[in-house]
Parts: sequence; structure tokens; C-alpha cells
Amino acid sequence: MRIRVFSALLCLAALGEARAQQPKFLSDSTLERPTDYEQWVMVGSSTGLSYNPAVNAQPGASPGMFHNVYLQPWAYRQVVETGRFPEGSMFVLAFFESSTNAAPAKGGFYEGDQLASFEVHVKKSGIDPTGWAFFGFDDKGPGEKLPGNAPCYSCHATEAKVDNVFVQFYPALREKLAAKGVYRK
Amino acid sequence: MRIRVFSALLCLAALGEARAQQPKFLSDSTLERPTDYEQWVMVGSSTGLSYNPAVNAQPGASPGMFHNVYLQPWAYRQVVETGRFPEGSMFVLAFFESSTNAAPAKGGFYEGDQLASFEVHVKKSGIDPTGWAFFGFDDKGPGEKLPGNAPCYSCHATEAKVDNVFVQFYPALREKLAAKGVYRK
Repeated sequence: MRIRVFSALLCLAALGEARAQQPKFLSDSTLERPTDYEQWVMVGSSTGLSYNPAVNAQPGASPGMFHNVYLQPWAYRQVVETGRFPEGSMFVLAFFESSTNAAPAKGGFYEGDQLASFEVHVKKSGIDPTGWAFFGFDDKGPGEKLPGNAPCYSCHATEAKVDNVFVQFYPALREKLAAKGVYRK
Repeated sequence: MRIRVFSALLCLAALGEARAQQPKFLSDSTLERPTDYEQWVMVGSSTGLSYNPAVNAQPGASPGMFHNVYLQPWAYRQVVETGRFPEGSMFVLAFFESSTNAAPAKGGFYEGDQLASFEVHVKKSGIDPTGWAFFGFDDKGPGEKLPGNAPCYSCHATEAKVDNVFVQFYPALREKLAAKGVYRK
């Protein structure tokens, strides 16, 4: 009986989660703020990633902010199974200060405070010639679509290895999509 | 009808997942290798984190390996709700080369190849005076328990902010456990 109640609760939770993880467009250019994305699949982290040549850092200097990229669990399972990102896939790009303040760490950097702003890359047929759009979120409320001439669109279209997605940076996707034949290492 | 089938499949998937994410002890000192932990909640990433003073790095040098720490989704939900890590909680510590080889990145570092070895910190009453044990995994097979006099036990017991867990390094836990009153920022 206890197991049955537990199972029922688990089912309700799974259904609620799958619904909550769908993108909700409030208009053609507005996307509802996704929640709880820290519980999605973190496909890859990076520090100080830049599309401009590196400035020479001082020894011991901060490596720059951490960027974590999250994908909905249902979309992750589907792309790993089929090799295609499903309609409604959302990548969240979240930013964290690099920090070195807490004992017992004496070297290196961990993820400090998260910035309030983040970005979403969402797959939606017809939203843009690339089939994906970028939305910027500030400290609260829904996100605003970045215009199609923003450089992220053309860069992702030409440089990203699989369907506008920077799979080359994501260890949780590289091997699995190579096994599907849609990514070459 | 389609929705009902989808719901049933989702329930089965959720039940299977919750079962697969429990620690399985093959003996007092052997733990079955956890699978698919890249889909768990990534509570915090760090680079080159060290408990020894930093060696002065050359400008532009690698920040050291990325360390990603993952916790089972069910355990994450419970600790966020109750403020206590449930019995059976497992943290996986996974290691990634820091890489800078892929276009269009011109600066910074992203997560390159994952090392085959990883570590698990598991909560199990009676396994150790701290209530937690460490298991080391190499490239295949089950993990071996690290002896209770290994330095990780005493360091986690004295330096970790919440129940042997380095919550101070984990953005996905710091705020939420502060809100529960079990962590002070």
C-alpha cells in the first residue's frame, strides 16, 4: 500500500515535471521564465569562454565566470535516443561568479553567486530560419526574443556542430551523439 | 488514449529511474557502479580546486581539471524540502580535462574528455562514524570503499558546512539550505 501511494506520487511528480519543462510562449517574442532548471541535465560547464582572443591573465587570476548549460531531461533522453533535438528543446545558459573564498579550498575556483540574468535557446519550427531562437532573461519576468540579426544566430548556425547546438563543448552529448553518427569528434 | 499511454510510459520511466538511483552495496566495502549520473542534479562545478596552496600559474595556463558533482534527483528534492540529506544520498565527483580546442572558442576553457575514474560519497547509517563513506571507481566495475582513516573523511567531517557535505561550494544547494536554516552563507 505504501509502495502504491509512493508510486502514484512519483507518477504525478513526473507528469507535473514534464509539463513544467515545456516552453511556454506568451507571444511571438516573449517566453515564460523557466523554473527549476538547475535540476535539468547539465550538459557542460565552461569558464571564461570567449569568442574573442584571450587577454593574457595574471598568474592566479580568476578564470572568468562559470557558464553552465542545462537541457530538459525529456529532451536529453530523446536526443540521445534519436540523434535529433526534439521540438521544444530548451538550453538554459546560466552564469556564476568564480569564487575562491570558502575553506578548505586553497587553490582553484568554484561556482559562487549566480547572476540573475540567463539566456535560453529554444527550438521551435518557424520561429527563425535556423529553427531556434534566443531569449534573454533579466532578474525577473518573462524573456524577450533576441532579434534574428543578433550575432548568436549566425554563429550558432555556422559553428555549432549539430543543429545549431554547440555539442563540441558538451561532454554529456559528445560521445552519445557520436555513437548516433550525428557528431564527429 | 495517446495521453494515457504517454502517462503510463512516463510513470514506468520515473519508477525505473528512482530504483536505478539507489546505492547498491555488493558487500560492506563494495558499491555497484552508478550509471547515467550525468542526468542527476549537477550541484556545483569547480576548476583546479585544491586543498593545497595554489602554485603560481603561467598566464593563459589551464585552470586545472573541471570537477562536476552530481546528486540523485530524488535526494536533491528531499534535502531541499526537509533540510536533511536522506539515507542513500550519493554524490558523484566526476573529472573532466579542461579543453580549449574547439572553434569558435578563442579564450577560456570548457569540459573536455571525462576521466574514467570517479568517486562517490554515500550516506549509509553505520558505515562509518560520520554516517557517510567514500568509494573510488576506476575505469570499470564496482567501487571500493576508502578506509576510514583516509583524509577525505576527517576533512569532510570538520570542514563541510552541512552533514559532511561541502554545501559551501554548491550553488544549487547553498541558497535553498540557507532558506531551511541549515546553512549560513
